[in-house]
Amino acid sequence: MSEIRWDLVKQNWVAVAANRALKPNDFPIAKMGLKAPAAGGFCPFCEGNENFTPPEITAYRPKSQANEKGWLVRAIPNKFSAFTLEGELVKTDSGIFSCYNGLGEHEVIIEDPRHGVEFHDLSPERIETVLNIFKERYQDLSSDARIKYIQIYKNRGMFAGASLEHCHSQIVGLPFVPQENSGLPKYYRDNNRCLLCDMLAQETASEERLICKTDHFTLICPYAPRFPYETWIVPQRHCEHFADINEEEVRDLARVLKKLTGVIMDCLDNPSYNLVFNTAPVNVEPEAGYHWYMELTPRLLVNAAVEIAAGIYMNPVAPELSAAMLREIMS
Amino acid sequence: MSEIRWDLVKQNWVAVAANRALKPNDFPIAKMGLKAPAAGGFCPFCEGNENFTPPEITAYRPKSQANEKGWLVRAIPNKFSAFTLEGELVKTDSGIFSCYNGLGEHEVIIEDPRHGVEFHDLSPERIETVLNIFKERYQDLSSDARIKYIQIYKNRGMFAGASLEHCHSQIVGLPFVPQENSGLPKYYRDNNRCLLCDMLAQETASEERLICKTDHFTLICPYAPRFPYETWIVPQRHCEHFADINEEEVRDLARVLKKLTGVIMDCLDNPSYNLVFNTAPVNVEPEAGYHWYMELTPRLLVNAAVEIAAGIYMNPVAPELSAAMLREIMS
Repeated sequence: MSEIRWDLVKQNWVAVAANRALKPNDFPIAKMGLKAPAAGGFCPFCEGNENFTPPEITAYRPKSQANEKGWLVRAIPNKFSAFTLEGELVKTDSGIFSCYNGLGEHEVIIEDPRHGVEFHDLSPERIETVLNIFKERYQDLSSDARIKYIQIYKNRGMFAGASLEHCHSQIVGLPFVPQENSGLPKYYRDNNRCLLCDMLAQETASEERLICKTDHFTLICPYAPRFPYETWIVPQRHCEHFADINEEEVRDLARVLKKLTGVIMDCLDNPSYNLVFNTAPVNVEPEAGYHWYMELTPRLLVNAAVEIAAGIYMNPVAPELSAAMLREIMS
Repeated sequence: MSEIRWDLVKQNWVAVAANRALKPNDFPIAKMGLKAPAAGGFCPFCEGNENFTPPEITAYRPKSQANEKGWLVRAIPNKFSAFTLEGELVKTDSGIFSCYNGLGEHEVIIEDPRHGVEFHDLSPERIETVLNIFKERYQDLSSDARIKYIQIYKNRGMFAGASLEHCHSQIVGLPFVPQENSGLPKYYRDNNRCLLCDMLAQETASEERLICKTDHFTLICPYAPRFPYETWIVPQRHCEHFADINEEEVRDLARVLKKLTGVIMDCLDNPSYNLVFNTAPVNVEPEAGYHWYMELTPRLLVNAAVEIAAGIYMNPVAPELSAAMLREIMS
């Protein structure tokens, strides 16, 4: 069981595994590579190995039975979850310190039964299925009043924090609202307008950092990107929660994601990357100003001391230049 | 020239190189290794290559002339600085966005003339010299009213963001105060006491996360560590600025750093790590509650999507366990 501890000095949350200690050699970096089942190795996410994962939560499987072969996309509990969705949130003080119990949920979405198939290899129809399972899991988790924020994300490649090679994403249900995207409600309080709607209007007019527009989404390199070639995918329709995405938007987004991830893999020479869904908190007093969006962050640089200590990102690539490059290739 | 841009959504600073774009292959990760001058390669930080760096700012050289051989520690401007210390801080608006010019300073401290000698290999006396040059540069930079925060740090190894192998640290002088350590003045405002002094008292009494005490410093694994085996070195004397360290403390700290970095290299199997000096802002209205300290963060894990998006760190090693391990070895 883990504890969610508050760092009084740096003012951030840390989920600490309170009862175990990984040894130095247990860390993926120490092995300088992912757990790739090369030549006869074992992968618990592969078709046929369903019994090596916890029983599935949901799956897209046209004909077969739960936890058997024949699935296309599969949602399972994360075997190494830092969180457990049991009981209530309890605060424990220890002198000047305090922590919460690790209340929450941590799931894995396996996006293809075949090992070695990557996200950008999936068909648009398969990506639609993946998005629909994200939506289903989001709706289900948000029906639990103890969960306050749902984070859907993908870590692809070692420099993005992936520890398994098989194509997958993750969903975390947190018992509190992280500081992430706190600028959205702040801007609304200050201006009585949606920041992302204003941003879309400005970026579309100036075209400086605009990559392309589809029927429902606008792709930009943001004004202050933390990572080189960072790209945001913003729905044009003002909408707070990812789960309120409609069928047409899912269809469009699947095509955008396939194309963008393919271009990024190609142009940036097979980089590690993260794909993150930013959305509004759930089960809390609603605050205006949220507008869901996605970010794709290639991880060409490691966060160094300035980033982790001072929280100032050093980005050697101007977004005006990365947008120009991506605009040419995406259009 | 770079721009310091504010991310309205995520509420953080980004220093963006506004006029250049690194190509994918320019990133160290793409090369999967440091620029190590193996077998006849070239290193600009090596003795004899003084002309390949900008002219030095200061150096410890018992007999020789500036920018010639014969030095032991050398401070130079960072050739690839994101900052320039010229003119005044100017804010520029661009629609809803705004940025500052890249006003600031970025220096490199080369800690030994020999390639391949690592920080933990240096003698305590040499580390004293390095610390004294840090102190001298801190004092000099803080005399410039345009600089508001001085960040001294080391990136060691590829997973800590190092791009050159030769043993060095860096100093950045920033034109604003980062959010780093904002919990210190906050705790003082709330409690009228110093957080780090209170923390030292509690950690010393409980011993749960205490590694060891020397004459002047206390080493702990912090209650909510962002990284496995993260260690803080806290001066027992309440003191806001690193540059107010006295001679005896420098002597003691040099020995602590040599021992701790050696232990970390040994026990964690040659990890990448950052070493960071946390200190009070300069040239701003003084706020009570700052207490300088150092942190050593081994980088055994890559920050994944949860860390970079939600700002929640997942740490699989409890500090009580890492402290027990380090306590046994350090004492």
